[in-house]
Amino acid sequence: MYYYKEELINQIVPDQPDPAAAKVLQEALGGHYGEMRTMMQYFFQSSNFRGKATQYRDLIRGVFLEEISHVELVQNTINQLLNDSGNSTGVGNSGVNGAPLDEAVKHANPHHFIVGAQASLPVDAGGNPWNGSWVYSHGNLIADLLDNLVLESTGVLQKSRIYEMSSNKTFRETIGFLIVRDNAHQNAFAKALETLGVDWGKLFPVPNYDINKYPECRKFVDMGYHNMQFNFRLDDTRIGEVFQGVSPSRNKGQLLVTQPPMGFPVPNLPDMPNEHSPGLQDMNL
Amino acid sequence: MYYYKEELINQIVPDQPDPAAAKVLQEALGGHYGEMRTMMQYFFQSSNFRGKATQYRDLIRGVFLEEISHVELVQNTINQLLNDSGNSTGVGNSGVNGAPLDEAVKHANPHHFIVGAQASLPVDAGGNPWNGSWVYSHGNLIADLLDNLVLESTGVLQKSRIYEMSSNKTFRETIGFLIVRDNAHQNAFAKALETLGVDWGKLFPVPNYDINKYPECRKFVDMGYHNMQFNFRLDDTRIGEVFQGVSPSRNKGQLLVTQPPMGFPVPNLPDMPNEHSPGLQDMNL
Amino acid sequence: MYYYKEELINQIVPDQPDPAAAKVLQEALGGHYGEMRTMMQYFFQSSNFRGKATQYRDLIRGVFLEEISHVELVQNTINQLLNDSGNSTGVGNSGVNGAPLDEAVKHANPHHFIVGAQASLPVDAGGNPWNGSWVYSHGNLIADLLDNLVLESTGVLQKSRIYEMSSNKTFRETIGFLIVRDNAHQNAFAKALETLGVDWGKLFPVPNYDINKYPECRKFVDMGYHNMQFNFRLDDTRIGEVFQGVSPSRNKGQLLVTQPPMGFPVPNLPDMPNEHSPGLQDMNL
Amino acid sequence: MYYYKEELINQIVPDQPDPAAAKVLQEALGGHYGEMRTMMQYFFQSSNFRGKATQYRDLIRGVFLEEISHVELVQNTINQLLNDSGNSTGVGNSGVNGAPLDEAVKHANPHHFIVGAQASLPVDAGGNPWNGSWVYSHGNLIADLLDNLVLESTGVLQKSRIYEMSSNKTFRETIGFLIVRDNAHQNAFAKALETLGVDWGKLFPVPNYDINKYPECRKFVDMGYHNMQFNFRLDDTRIGEVFQGVSPSRNKGQLLVTQPPMGFPVPNLPDMPNEHSPGLQDMNL
Amino acid sequence: MYYYKEELINQIVPDQPDPAAAKVLQEALGGHYGEMRTMMQYFFQSSNFRGKATQYRDLIRGVFLEEISHVELVQNTINQLLNDSGNSTGVGNSGVNGAPLDEAVKHANPHHFIVGAQASLPVDAGGNPWNGSWVYSHGNLIADLLDNLVLESTGVLQKSRIYEMSSNKTFRETIGFLIVRDNAHQNAFAKALETLGVDWGKLFPVPNYDINKYPECRKFVDMGYHNMQFNFRLDDTRIGEVFQGVSPSRNKGQLLVTQPPMGFPVPNLPDMPNEHSPGLQDMNL
Amino acid sequence: MYYYKEELINQIVPDQPDPAAAKVLQEALGGHYGEMRTMMQYFFQSSNFRGKATQYRDLIRGVFLEEISHVELVQNTINQLLNDSGNSTGVGNSGVNGAPLDEAVKHANPHHFIVGAQASLPVDAGGNPWNGSWVYSHGNLIADLLDNLVLESTGVLQKSRIYEMSSNKTFRETIGFLIVRDNAHQNAFAKALETLGVDWGKLFPVPNYDINKYPECRKFVDMGYHNMQFNFRLDDTRIGEVFQGVSPSRNKGQLLVTQPPMGFPVPNLPDMPNEHSPGLQDMNL
Repeated sequence: MYYYKEELINQIVPDQPDPAAAKVLQEALGGHYGEMRTMMQYFFQSSNFRGKATQYRDLIRGVFLEEISHVELVQNTINQLLNDSGNSTGVGNSGVNGAPLDEAVKHANPHHFIVGAQASLPVDAGGNPWNGSWVYSHGNLIADLLDNLVLESTGVLQKSRIYEMSSNKTFRETIGFLIVRDNAHQNAFAKALETLGVDWGKLFPVPNYDINKYPECRKFVDMGYHNMQFNFRLDDTRIGEVFQGVSPSRNKGQLLVTQPPMGFPVPNLPDMPNEHSPGLQDMNL
Repeated sequence: MYYYKEELINQIVPDQPDPAAAKVLQEALGGHYGEMRTMMQYFFQSSNFRGKATQYRDLIRGVFLEEISHVELVQNTINQLLNDSGNSTGVGNSGVNGAPLDEAVKHANPHHFIVGAQASLPVDAGGNPWNGSWVYSHGNLIADLLDNLVLESTGVLQKSRIYEMSSNKTFRETIGFLIVRDNAHQNAFAKALETLGVDWGKLFPVPNYDINKYPECRKFVDMGYHNMQFNFRLDDTRIGEVFQGVSPSRNKGQLLVTQPPMGFPVPNLPDMPNEHSPGLQDMNL
Repeated sequence: MYYYKEELINQIVPDQPDPAAAKVLQEALGGHYGEMRTMMQYFFQSSNFRGKATQYRDLIRGVFLEEISHVELVQNTINQLLNDSGNSTGVGNSGVNGAPLDEAVKHANPHHFIVGAQASLPVDAGGNPWNGSWVYSHGNLIADLLDNLVLESTGVLQKSRIYEMSSNKTFRETIGFLIVRDNAHQNAFAKALETLGVDWGKLFPVPNYDINKYPECRKFVDMGYHNMQFNFRLDDTRIGEVFQGVSPSRNKGQLLVTQPPMGFPVPNLPDMPNEHSPGLQDMNL
Repeated sequence: MYYYKEELINQIVPDQPDPAAAKVLQEALGGHYGEMRTMMQYFFQSSNFRGKATQYRDLIRGVFLEEISHVELVQNTINQLLNDSGNSTGVGNSGVNGAPLDEAVKHANPHHFIVGAQASLPVDAGGNPWNGSWVYSHGNLIADLLDNLVLESTGVLQKSRIYEMSSNKTFRETIGFLIVRDNAHQNAFAKALETLGVDWGKLFPVPNYDINKYPECRKFVDMGYHNMQFNFRLDDTRIGEVFQGVSPSRNKGQLLVTQPPMGFPVPNLPDMPNEHSPGLQDMNL
Repeated sequence: MYYYKEELINQIVPDQPDPAAAKVLQEALGGHYGEMRTMMQYFFQSSNFRGKATQYRDLIRGVFLEEISHVELVQNTINQLLNDSGNSTGVGNSGVNGAPLDEAVKHANPHHFIVGAQASLPVDAGGNPWNGSWVYSHGNLIADLLDNLVLESTGVLQKSRIYEMSSNKTFRETIGFLIVRDNAHQNAFAKALETLGVDWGKLFPVPNYDINKYPECRKFVDMGYHNMQFNFRLDDTRIGEVFQGVSPSRNKGQLLVTQPPMGFPVPNLPDMPNEHSPGLQDMNL
Repeated sequence: MYYYKEELINQIVPDQPDPAAAKVLQEALGGHYGEMRTMMQYFFQSSNFRGKATQYRDLIRGVFLEEISHVELVQNTINQLLNDSGNSTGVGNSGVNGAPLDEAVKHANPHHFIVGAQASLPVDAGGNPWNGSWVYSHGNLIADLLDNLVLESTGVLQKSRIYEMSSNKTFRETIGFLIVRDNAHQNAFAKALETLGVDWGKLFPVPNYDINKYPECRKFVDMGYHNMQFNFRLDDTRIGEVFQGVSPSRNKGQLLVTQPPMGFPVPNLPDMPNEHSPGLQDMNL
């Protein structure tokens, strides 16, 4: 069973609204290689696990638990980027208070303004809905681990490209955090395969990103986040039997299972009466 | 952030394998009105919530948290129904130990035997993958609550039909539990709308199922599960401001926020060397 | 605007329930080349029509109007094939009144029993939902007419194959009627292209079905249905400027715009309390 | 069977072309909560209806019949918004007569210019094709009515947001009309549930839109369109047994079954030789 | 079995990058009527062919073989249009060397920059992935040929519209070539139907494009490419039994089976270190 | 450009028809990890390749070329399994000559009998159409190679499970051949990563299948097919710079680039007049 404390795994840094950034960031939420995929893939792999080598199941499940909070982080980041964007001036188009909605919509995902009240959706950067056929859970541990490794590598690769699409601080803080955590999960699955006999040489991390070019990543690397696995278990776990020792990546360092980070507040989104959200304004609640 | 204790929210009752039952039970996992949908819908609605009436957000989030463990329960039930089914006798078809796989496959979802190693998948009873476009999170609280009510009502309705498709005990225990819990969640959203002024009369529960016809539901109703909301929060929650007082259903009773049930063990699935699952048999692990 | 009289365009012939036949007949309703496609394709083509040669628009729209009643006919046929199938004996499996549901479900579309209360769905024979990308409306009249011709030819071709899949009379009566009407619509579009200069020789009808092998088609051919276009317009139409003269098919005959056929009663489906359909049994309505 | 008179249910008000508006208006045609969905959902629900309480079937069918003309209205509105947009200057790019097509395309749905000859498509605002899995027809009357209520509420909610995306008069006239009619259909389904015992209090309409902010809605409300149900039946109907008495919405008024509105002319779209539409220019027709 | 020589079937003409043009050109690659569809449709039709009239199978297969090189041509054209676009100035946004990526992305398919390293994808102009349900292979030769004719006609029609969307030379050279070759394939399938008895009159080509308006087509028409079928067989073929004699189009000319054109070099795309493509820069390869 | 010689890459071994086997074998053709995916994935990766290390491009392209003939092999195998199955006795159901079609259809993919004239389709074992979003071409060579490795490993894994589903000889011969060739391609991509520094230890092949349990694989292993790369280039290629030396799998052996195997005849499928395929029977061709 699953328990919750209302805290985000990283902070939401304030900046201007940016619906075009929100649109592309959806890839990290509902894309083929986004956080919903990682969350559901590791969920199915841990529930479907066979055999006694449960240290691997605990590793996969451990990453799954963190991915739930990644989904929540990206949802909140997208909401922040959309909030107060396309600030329509009231029905009737009097045009006093802000940019007309049609400007915002031109470079936005129109569903952010039609389906959501300027809020996140389970879709990718092209607006395609998340799809269950993307989940890989084939029961063969080596194949599953290799696919997880591709998934985490692609996560970093895509994020290093998404990073270029806006210099918005809200946007880049979240991307920077996720790049480092994807790197840690890449290390987790690479290490698991190392325990099965692989020597990766200097292959990882994939892609070979230069930490100096991503200042938002730097602080997390300085804290060692790329070599840590946060433990969200309220009971025992064998994860440390795999996630330990020297990192399988060429950057080395020691792998370490730790407590989760101190949480950050979940932002409260204001009412949007023009969007009829939440729509209770006349109900005196 | 999300925490986990390795316990199922209900028991897995042992019975014979039944891949045809596993196939139809997929509807309750990856179907349009299944547990993956409820889980993701309430996740998006709680993250995207606007305004100060956060007692409703806490209600929605509270149901979300339970749905994660429902997904886990159905995954494990499907795995149990598939395990040891189509017990192929070893490559080469010597046919000694059990039914040939082709018999099992005739009335099964073939992907249960090709993609999974006889394990659950994120698809519905027809084999269609779960789709993000099903998630309803429109930002208007009344519309969201009404849709949640339709979702939970349809959940019970579909399960009352799926129930007829096999008398397997593993299958029916899980369906019986979920019917009662969907009923509780139906009460939660109906009550939320009651606090906004609706009087439901004798409309609920939908469908009007007769508890005497579902013996697997009886014990949970006797324990009052249809009027309880389990609380998985490690911090404070305003859920009790909504989920309290007389039930909005015609069966009445008092709504009550309680501790989660005592957990049940997560089954360990055995190795399936013929399925190359987990595929470590020669690695001395 | 659209008007309705509660009458079916052909009769529903009684026979035994046959859920396997219902499953394959879905192709004629929600398949790539089924009646929902023809209905929506001609709807879009007539609304999107450009230019003054409106006799072609009226032809396309005329076929569209009939297709609505074809959709209704197939829905009712599927319902008849499903009704009273998988006659579950009441919850609790007492097994007195009929075949257990799990038998019916084995060769059925499970969604017929989970989503519908043994009723039709907007899906194809494989359970894939109807998809808007199938609609062809490209604005070039010749291309549109050629595609319509392929659509109607494929309609007959598929139905001549579906016909083989069951000898159920309910099933074959509807298929027989639709084969002849698809043939008439094939003639309509072939004739339209003939007015633009094509001489089809002996190419049509496609496929070259032998009327003697389809006794259910015979009576309709004897009535000349393969060369008639029913007129559902309450105002004037130029359809007769195209649909006239000698049939473009090798079977010849004169094309004729006529009144619609005398209607047949729409069957009333009985309550299914076990399916909670309509679910009003305790409400004294 | 279905009959037709070539008249639109509301007028097409002339204004400038606006392909960006056409793109977002597709949501009201082919979106998850658009007119194609309402049309097909009520079609399936009325054909699949079980039991003797046929006053509810007649209500659902009555709304279905109007939805066909809504689909036609939105198709024509989109066509008007696209017509003469991206006025390419003739092949070879001489650039004399109008804006180059590439400007129009930048904020447009590119399929409006590639698949259609600047004409409507069965897709949503994001370009995703209409999907049959959206249709809800579960056979339980209460669940069906609740889902219909969510569908109509979401229809108004989305349209109140789409309304903000352009001040084009062609666009807003159609949206204004549809908001009021969706409100009437919301009243129809809310009333049906009221006859089953629900007291809605002040919950409806959802969303709680302010008629004064939508001048295009005002005239229709003044005519009482929000409380009328147009009757498109050529034979008897029991719809008036449900749709009568005081409106279930907080705005009250008397529900009334009436004749359809006087029709408006269906616009004739001009030839577009550059688009090869209809492509008959050299054929002397 | 299939053999390859690294040569393109037409040249890649250099011009400026144009990601908006790349986006719409995707329709010709991964669209419903694009080159991936023609390739796969003719592949299935030739493998699934029944009966002894193998001259038709050889015709279909002959076109299939050319379509593989069309797919390759469009992939390379899209790559050229994307290459060096959104020339980001290095992570950290120093903005010296070129346009910031966010400008490029605004009118681009974002997946061109997230999934691909500024490279082609198997999707259409709206970003929808290529779909196998589009392939038409029904086994009836006449129906298959008619559908192929619609497919090739739609190919030219769409390309004549896509042509208007950019005056980029890289873009228009490829479109011009493909228009003429689609015309040739249209002639191939029209001729095949002519051998079965059809007289097309002046119907073809569809659409009736004016060669003088497409200067990029002119040179290919002057070389007779619209009446040639390139032969990629290394063994015998009966294609010439069908593809011979007078062209079925109103433009006449003699159909001729010929050798493939002289090939053109496949461009080498440079490294993009910022995109981590190919990502080997530190590996001394 | 691509050239063809009408020869299959392996033989079609005769056996009884088996439509249930044809249904599951579709996974190897149109499934997520089937031959259409491998073919298209390597096609896009080779066309989109960046940089000077073209020995890797030539390796990927080399595998692509073979995959086209794998698609053709599976199409022909499915056709053989379907041919003469559901041998309907002629329209009218006289039931003399063979099994009625409805029996065949019960455990078959109904589209094999409705869409195809008992012939292959671009769908998976569950009837879901092939989807372009499955193609992985991200531009980072290491990520691409890792994904290719997962793809080939999953190919073997799935085929080792599909193998169990029928003992039909036509079926198993093709599966046996493909298992060994997937193994060779696995070696190709594993070797490519080895040249980038990885030491795989004893990880491969994945899965760890026992050659003695798959007699149909044995002959190909004896011929060394698991360590060969067939060369389909008519010009030079650098593939041998990568595919050489000791195999990266624990089974060792020397990697070798060789000529393609001697081809096998492509079967001619007989007419099926009842299926209207090819439908020319009355045309004297």
